[in-house]
Amino acid sequence: MNEIGELFFSGKAKDVYSHENKDYVIIKFRDDITAGDGEKKDNLKGKGECNSLISSKLFEILEENGLSTQYIELIEPGVILSKKLDMIPLEVILRNIATGSLIKKFPFREKQDINPPIIQMDFKNDEYHDPMLNDDIIIALEIAKKEELNQIRKITLKINAILSEFLKNVGVLLVDFKLEFGKDIMGNITLGDEISPDTCRFWNITTFETLDKDLFRKGEGDVMNVYREVCKLIVSEEDLKRWGIEPL
Amino acid sequence: MNEIGELFFSGKAKDVYSHENKDYVIIKFRDDITAGDGEKKDNLKGKGECNSLISSKLFEILEENGLSTQYIELIEPGVILSKKLDMIPLEVILRNIATGSLIKKFPFREKQDINPPIIQMDFKNDEYHDPMLNDDIIIALEIAKKEELNQIRKITLKINAILSEFLKNVGVLLVDFKLEFGKDIMGNITLGDEISPDTCRFWNITTFETLDKDLFRKGEGDVMNVYREVCKLIVSEEDLKRWGIEPL
Repeated sequence: MNEIGELFFSGKAKDVYSHENKDYVIIKFRDDITAGDGEKKDNLKGKGECNSLISSKLFEILEENGLSTQYIELIEPGVILSKKLDMIPLEVILRNIATGSLIKKFPFREKQDINPPIIQMDFKNDEYHDPMLNDDIIIALEIAKKEELNQIRKITLKINAILSEFLKNVGVLLVDFKLEFGKDIMGNITLGDEISPDTCRFWNITTFETLDKDLFRKGEGDVMNVYREVCKLIVSEEDLKRWGIEPL
Repeated sequence: MNEIGELFFSGKAKDVYSHENKDYVIIKFRDDITAGDGEKKDNLKGKGECNSLISSKLFEILEENGLSTQYIELIEPGVILSKKLDMIPLEVILRNIATGSLIKKFPFREKQDINPPIIQMDFKNDEYHDPMLNDDIIIALEIAKKEELNQIRKITLKINAILSEFLKNVGVLLVDFKLEFGKDIMGNITLGDEISPDTCRFWNITTFETLDKDLFRKGEGDVMNVYREVCKLIVSEEDLKRWGIEPL
């Protein structure tokens, strides 16, 4: 029923396969991890499965809150059945707390609260090294229309509110995150890609310890051990039972 | 009456002096020219006088069209009496045609028409190398409020319409330009700084020849000769007579 078809797109950490239903795709999460514009690379056994569970749970929460996402169902750990989207080549980044590239590029203080949050849109384009855009440039490059950008901004703020609240309740601070959107077959703006420790900054809400890809970027600690901890915080035993998966 | 007071600010190509009226300043245009984040420097005899005449004329045109600017009067070539402004540290760049850094950073074609034009706001900050900003970052850094940015954008588009029309009639294509704004003593957003071949890209409307600082950036041709030509195109003999200045 969910037989994996032809590979038609391979990203830095995921592969996308066709499905017998042409409006669907199957997304396989790989164990590859990259950082620094692709300069740093590794392969972390179990990362793909781990991220697929975290992402499935977070997309389910967004769907329950009335948001339209690409997610249909977790087929098995590492493999998600999804709606096929025509992806918009933007990395939509929301920042609640200043850290990372934000404090390198602009005079914010490390750990400074940003409220209201900053939404930044980078061009997903390896040749141009993902430069930051503004609305006028996005429109001139015909990446998206003004109304679509306003809609993406509104959805992104809503996602921030929903996920910040959920994560707070499991002891995780949502520092910042990156989203990617596409259009479904009806042309509706729809959340795609993944939401995981690869695409978010998660901090322990009490100690501010890093619980995300920054550990890999900085070469600190046992990355997979932390990813597994995050997975246990976000995905409950009930979720696993519901998905028909053995306890982690 | 217009005695030059104390030097209180020295920029890359202009000095600002106090005036006996504390709401005014005197701006002296120097002959210094810089490019590439200040890496390339020179001194072009007569450039300060030339740019002060061009800028005076263009600011007068904007004032005649109902826009509020810093300009009061040309005291003598190179010296302008101006309203004192509390400057906003933004470089507001408008682009009608793609060239320069725009085509290096993003996939636009050289000489591509950009319509509607792109407005880009860079942070005027040497330590951070004038990075491009977006509205959310400008607001989070408390550089300006959302309503002020909307007003700046509206004024910038109006300036583009007025100056493009005037320049077209003297054979000059307004490719792009950089503006700086400040607040006057009443807190009103007011155009400051200068508009000259140092801050605009001017092309010959027929041949597309460069008539601006790009000649210096690229080390091509007799820069001052071209600046003097542009001055003659923009500033009429009547203007000079009105200002009490000998023909160029």
